[in-house]
Amino acid sequence: MEASRALATRVPVAVLGATGYTGVELLRLLARHPAVELAFLSSEQYRDRRAADIYPFLAGIVETALRAPEPAEVAAAAGIVFTALPHGAAAPVVAELVRRGCRVIDLSADFRFRDAAVYARWYATHPAPELLAEAVYGLPELYRTRLRDARIVACPGCYPTGALLGLVPLARAGLLREPVIIDAKSGTTGAGRGAKVEQLFAEVNENFRPYAIGEHRHGPEIDQELHAAGATRGTLFVPHLLPVSRGLLSTMYVRIAGGRPPLEELFQRAYGSEPFVVLRGEQAPPELREVRGTNRCAIGWRWDGASGQAIVVTAIDNLGKGASGQAVQCLNVMLGLPETAGLEAPALVP
Amino acid sequence: MEASRALATRVPVAVLGATGYTGVELLRLLARHPAVELAFLSSEQYRDRRAADIYPFLAGIVETALRAPEPAEVAAAAGIVFTALPHGAAAPVVAELVRRGCRVIDLSADFRFRDAAVYARWYATHPAPELLAEAVYGLPELYRTRLRDARIVACPGCYPTGALLGLVPLARAGLLREPVIIDAKSGTTGAGRGAKVEQLFAEVNENFRPYAIGEHRHGPEIDQELHAAGATRGTLFVPHLLPVSRGLLSTMYVRIAGGRPPLEELFQRAYGSEPFVVLRGEQAPPELREVRGTNRCAIGWRWDGASGQAIVVTAIDNLGKGASGQAVQCLNVMLGLPETAGLEAPALVP
Amino acid sequence: MEASRALATRVPVAVLGATGYTGVELLRLLARHPAVELAFLSSEQYRDRRAADIYPFLAGIVETALRAPEPAEVAAAAGIVFTALPHGAAAPVVAELVRRGCRVIDLSADFRFRDAAVYARWYATHPAPELLAEAVYGLPELYRTRLRDARIVACPGCYPTGALLGLVPLARAGLLREPVIIDAKSGTTGAGRGAKVEQLFAEVNENFRPYAIGEHRHGPEIDQELHAAGATRGTLFVPHLLPVSRGLLSTMYVRIAGGRPPLEELFQRAYGSEPFVVLRGEQAPPELREVRGTNRCAIGWRWDGASGQAIVVTAIDNLGKGASGQAVQCLNVMLGLPETAGLEAPALVP
Amino acid sequence: MEASRALATRVPVAVLGATGYTGVELLRLLARHPAVELAFLSSEQYRDRRAADIYPFLAGIVETALRAPEPAEVAAAAGIVFTALPHGAAAPVVAELVRRGCRVIDLSADFRFRDAAVYARWYATHPAPELLAEAVYGLPELYRTRLRDARIVACPGCYPTGALLGLVPLARAGLLREPVIIDAKSGTTGAGRGAKVEQLFAEVNENFRPYAIGEHRHGPEIDQELHAAGATRGTLFVPHLLPVSRGLLSTMYVRIAGGRPPLEELFQRAYGSEPFVVLRGEQAPPELREVRGTNRCAIGWRWDGASGQAIVVTAIDNLGKGASGQAVQCLNVMLGLPETAGLEAPALVP
Repeated sequence: MEASRALATRVPVAVLGATGYTGVELLRLLARHPAVELAFLSSEQYRDRRAADIYPFLAGIVETALRAPEPAEVAAAAGIVFTALPHGAAAPVVAELVRRGCRVIDLSADFRFRDAAVYARWYATHPAPELLAEAVYGLPELYRTRLRDARIVACPGCYPTGALLGLVPLARAGLLREPVIIDAKSGTTGAGRGAKVEQLFAEVNENFRPYAIGEHRHGPEIDQELHAAGATRGTLFVPHLLPVSRGLLSTMYVRIAGGRPPLEELFQRAYGSEPFVVLRGEQAPPELREVRGTNRCAIGWRWDGASGQAIVVTAIDNLGKGASGQAVQCLNVMLGLPETAGLEAPALVP
Repeated sequence: MEASRALATRVPVAVLGATGYTGVELLRLLARHPAVELAFLSSEQYRDRRAADIYPFLAGIVETALRAPEPAEVAAAAGIVFTALPHGAAAPVVAELVRRGCRVIDLSADFRFRDAAVYARWYATHPAPELLAEAVYGLPELYRTRLRDARIVACPGCYPTGALLGLVPLARAGLLREPVIIDAKSGTTGAGRGAKVEQLFAEVNENFRPYAIGEHRHGPEIDQELHAAGATRGTLFVPHLLPVSRGLLSTMYVRIAGGRPPLEELFQRAYGSEPFVVLRGEQAPPELREVRGTNRCAIGWRWDGASGQAIVVTAIDNLGKGASGQAVQCLNVMLGLPETAGLEAPALVP
Repeated sequence: MEASRALATRVPVAVLGATGYTGVELLRLLARHPAVELAFLSSEQYRDRRAADIYPFLAGIVETALRAPEPAEVAAAAGIVFTALPHGAAAPVVAELVRRGCRVIDLSADFRFRDAAVYARWYATHPAPELLAEAVYGLPELYRTRLRDARIVACPGCYPTGALLGLVPLARAGLLREPVIIDAKSGTTGAGRGAKVEQLFAEVNENFRPYAIGEHRHGPEIDQELHAAGATRGTLFVPHLLPVSRGLLSTMYVRIAGGRPPLEELFQRAYGSEPFVVLRGEQAPPELREVRGTNRCAIGWRWDGASGQAIVVTAIDNLGKGASGQAVQCLNVMLGLPETAGLEAPALVP
Repeated sequence: MEASRALATRVPVAVLGATGYTGVELLRLLARHPAVELAFLSSEQYRDRRAADIYPFLAGIVETALRAPEPAEVAAAAGIVFTALPHGAAAPVVAELVRRGCRVIDLSADFRFRDAAVYARWYATHPAPELLAEAVYGLPELYRTRLRDARIVACPGCYPTGALLGLVPLARAGLLREPVIIDAKSGTTGAGRGAKVEQLFAEVNENFRPYAIGEHRHGPEIDQELHAAGATRGTLFVPHLLPVSRGLLSTMYVRIAGGRPPLEELFQRAYGSEPFVVLRGEQAPPELREVRGTNRCAIGWRWDGASGQAIVVTAIDNLGKGASGQAVQCLNVMLGLPETAGLEAPALVP
C-alpha cells in the first residue's frame, strides 16, 4: 500500500518477551514500521503459539510464531534485538546477544544505571556490570548522538521519561537547586501483565492511590540523569495509580529563587525542533489522552510568583514514549532513519 | 516520511462538521491518508478556530482552520466532501454540493432509506427526496460496485453496520425466515458530542442499560437491508449503552428450522477476501477491543442445536467501521485506491 | 447509635472465606446488621491478619481476626455459618458443620443442584450427595417457606438469580414453551478475586465480550429451576463480561404464541409485596446502577407484537441480590427477622 | 426495622436543589437517617415530578414530590433547610429562609468567606454580606462548638475539606511557614450534573488532566482557614480531574525546617477521637475507594528527610465528607444527635 512497504530490504529485528504489555506494544508499532521486519519473536509463557492467538487484534498483522529465546537463533535471525524481559532476566540475555554481535534495545531496568552499586541497592547484584559503561540511556532528546552507534540501549523507565523531559531544561539552566517534587500519576499497564490481585479490574476501577512514596526505584534513575544535567539536589518522587489503561501525567514543582525564570524560552530552545515534544505552554496544560497510543510528550508550565514555584506538567503514554514507542525511536536513530518512522499515527481520541 | 507522502497530487477533500466525534475521527484518519489532502474543514460551533485548539492531539497533524460551511467555498476547495452533520441538516447541504458537482459521503441518516416515507416516519419529512434513488448505501462489502461511481454515499448507521455484516450472509442463504433478535451494546461516542446529562461521565460510568427497546430508528434501516438480501421477517432490535468510549458488539439470535446451517462456509464465502472482516469462527467470540480504532469487523458464530438457534456475534468500532472508518473505505472505493489506504493502523491494545 | 443496636442478644454468625469478593460483601452487610454479630471469620490466604488490613474500608467496622476454618472452633463460635468457599471445597466443610449442629448458608455451587449427576457433569463428583435432598435453594421469592427451617441453604448463582426472577412468573403461567434466550451481562466481581490475567484492569477496561456461549454452568442451574416452575424447554444462555465492578443485567427474549400475555399482571401478582423487587414496567427499563450495592432486583418488560416476543430485563448487583445480599436475606428468613434487616441502604448513585 | 425508626417525632427538613449531585446525595443519606423526615424537596428543573422518576434507585425510598422552592412553603414545612443551589443563587434564598426563622445548611460557596471582598474577587458581588459574620464554616472537626447553635452553616468546598483536614494540625503546630503544595485529584461529580461537553463520558474516560492551576476558587478558601489556624504563607493549589465518579485524593507537600516533626502525635491529638477521621499512618497511604459513599476522611503521612518535606495524603468522597455527608454531620451537631447518625454505612468496596 504505502510505497515505503515496497522497500527491497527491511531490517530484521527480534522482540524477546513479545506478549507482555511492552512487548505487544512493540509488535503493534513494528508491524507497520516501513523499514523493519519482525524476524523473531519469543515468549516464555506462550511459546509455539501465534501472537494473534493471545492478542486477536494482531490477526493478519503479526503471524510470526512465538518461540523460545535461544540466543543463537535470535542472533541468526536478527541484527537488532528488543529485550522486553523482566529486570534481572534481561542482563544475561543482553550480554550473550552482544557477544554474538547483535545490537540490543533493552526495555528492562538492567542497563539504566551507570553505577552497579546503585542498581544493587534498588534491584539486585548486577549480572553484567562490565557492560554498564557502554550502555546508552535511550532518551533521544538527551543522548541522540551517542545512540547512533550504541550496542546497548537502556530504555528509560516510564516515570523517568516523563519527569526528565520536563525537568532537564531547568537543570541545564542551573535552576534545580532545591529538591524538586514529582507528583506522578500512571495508568495500570505500567505495572505489566502479571496476574496480581492489586491490578484486577475491581481493585483499580473507581480507585486512586499513591504508592511507594519516596521509595520507588524510578527515583534514583531520575536523580542520576538530573544530576548529570546539572541539578544539585535530589527529587521527592511520589507515584500514584490511575484507573486508566495507558498514560502517565507528572505534575512537578520546582522552587526557584530569584523570580520568574524564562520557561518558554528554555523549553523552546530544548525542544523547538523535536518531533515528539509538544509544547503546550502556560495556558493549556497537557491531558493524558492527547498522547494515548503515541510517542509524544506534551509539556505545559506555569510560574506561581506567590510561592516562587515553577509548575511543569508532562504527559506521555507509558507504553509509548514511556517504553516501546521510545524504543522504536531509538531504533530509528540507530538505523539513521527519520525518527518518526513507524510512529506517526495520531492519538486515539476520543 | 512514507514514500507515498511524496505523491505529486493528493485529492482535496472537505469535512463538514469536523469537531463532532465522527468528524474528528475523519480528521484522525484522513490526516495520515496517503492520497488525500484536508482542503476544507467546517464547524458551526468553533468556526475560525483550529481543530487542534479543540482537540490538542491534532497539534502538528491538522492545522487547517475551521470555517463556515459555505457551499461555494466548499465546492471550490474539494471535489469530495464528507458531511458529518446532524440528521435533517445534512440533506440540503448534500443537495447543494451535488448540484455544484461534488461527490458527497454523508454520515448522517438522511440518505440511508430508499423510501422517503420510512424516513418521514422515523426522522422527519425528507428535504431532498428526489436524491434518494441515486444514493448508494455505503457498506462496501455489499455495494462495492455501485459505490465506485456514486455521487452520494449514505454511510450506514453504526448498529446497522454491525448487524448487517453478521446477518446478510444468512439472509442471502435464505435462512432469515423467523424474526431475528439483535441484542446490541454500544459505547457512548455513538450518541455524539452533544452536551446531554445522560451522557455525562457520572451517568454512564459503572452503569449499563437498554434503551429504545424495539423502537430505535436503526431498526428499520437494518430491516431495509435484510429484506433486500432475502430476509422474509423483520428484526427485534434492542440496543444497550456500554460504559466504554468506543465499540459496538452485537449478539444476534437466528432461529433456523432444519438443523445446523453451514455457517463457516457462508461466512467464508461472503468475506473470505474482505480486507476488513476478521472471521473468528466458533471457538473464539469477538471482543470489543480487538477492533478499537480500526475499520475492522470481527465475526464469531455458534450453533445451538438444543434451541435450534445460530448465534452470530460481531464487533466493530462504532466510530471506525461504524462511521468514519467505513466512510474512508468508501472514499477509497470511489477513488479506485486500495481499500485499506489510510486504514491500516492496528487496534490500540491494551 | 441505632436503638436496635442495643439489642441484648445478637446472633453469632461465622463467615468462612471472608476475604474473597462475596466474603467481604458479607462483612460489609453483616457488620451493620441489627441482629447479628460477626463471631468468627476465616481466610486461608490471610489467616491471623485483620480484615481491615486487607480492606482498609473495614477499619473500625470489622476488627475480628481472620483465622483458619477449624470446624470445631467455628461450630463453637456460631450457630449459623456463611460459607464463601470455592466450589468443591465448600461441600465437605458444610457437611462437617451440619454434623456439628450448625445451619449453613452456602454461597458456592455445591448444593444448588438436586441431582448429583448434573453437578458431576458441570463441576465434579459431589463430595456429599446425601445432603442434596435437604438443601433449600436460597431464592426467598420462590422458596421462602422452606427456607425458614433449612439446615443448608444453597445460594443461587448470580446469573440464575437475575434470570429466574424475570422468568419464573412466565414459567408458572405456562408461557415458557419455546427456548428462552438469556443475553446476560455481568460486572467483573462475578469472577471472584483470584489473580487471573483476563481479569486485569487493562484487559477488562474499554472491552466487552461474550464468553462460554451456551456452555456456562449457570445454564443448567437456570434450567433446573425453570423446569420446576413449569417451563417445558431449556434456555440458551449467553453471558458477557462488562467493564464495571458490580452489576448484572439480563435481557431475555421469550417467544409466546397466541398474542400479548398479561405481563404487568403476572409480575404484579408474583412480586407485588416483595420488598426487594422493583417493577419498572413497560416504559422504563432497568439500569445497573439503580441496584448497585443493594439487594434489589429491578424488572422491566415489553411486548413486541411483530416478532411475538416478550422482552424481560432484570438488573441486580451480582454481589448483592446475586450473592451476599441474598444470603443475608435468607438469614433473615431463617431467623424470623424482617427480610430487610441490614439490607436497607439505598444504591450508591451517582 | 431499626428501633430508632419508631421515634415518635422526626425533625422535618427540606432540601432545595434536590436533583443535582449534592442534592441527591442528601436524599440518599437523609432518607435513612433515624431522626429526620424529608418534608420538602425542590427542583427547578424537574418540578412536580418525583425524585424517583429522575433517579430510579430512590423508588420506594423517597416519594416526596419535587416542588418550586417557595420560601413561605419551605419555612412552613421544615425548620432546617439544606440549600444545594448554585453559587449566587443560594444567598438570597438563605437570607429569606433565615428571616423566616429557618436554620440553613448551605452547600454553595456563598457563605464560606468571612470577607465579602474575597467572595467578590472569586465569585461575584455578595447578595447578602450582612450574614457573613454569623455563618459558621461547616467543618465539625474545626468548628464543632460554634455549629451547635448556628443559624447558617457554610459547608466547605470538597477540595478545602480534603486539604484542611490534612493541614490544620500542622498549621496549629506552627509548621506551615513555607508555601504548601496541594496536588489534588477529584472525581467528576465535583463538577455537578450540568450538561457540559467537558464532562461527557467520552471526554473524561481514559483521560486525566490538571486544570485551573493556581487559579481555582477553592484556593482562597483553603488559605482563609489555614491562616486562621496559624499558617503564615499561602498554598499552591493544583486540582486535577480523575476518571472516577466519586472521590478526592490530595497529596500535600509541606517544607519544614528543623527536622522531622511529630506527625503521628499531631494527628492523633487532633483526630484521635473523631468518628470520621481514619488515621492510616506512615505505612499505608489512603486510597480513594476506602471512603467511597462515606463521610470518612482517611489520612496518611510520611517524612522525607532528604528534602525536608512532610507528605500528607487525605482521601474523601467529594459527595460525602466533601459535601452532603458533611452537611448531615453538621445537622447532627446542630440537633445534638450522635454525629454518626445516618452516616454509618461502610464504603462500597469492591
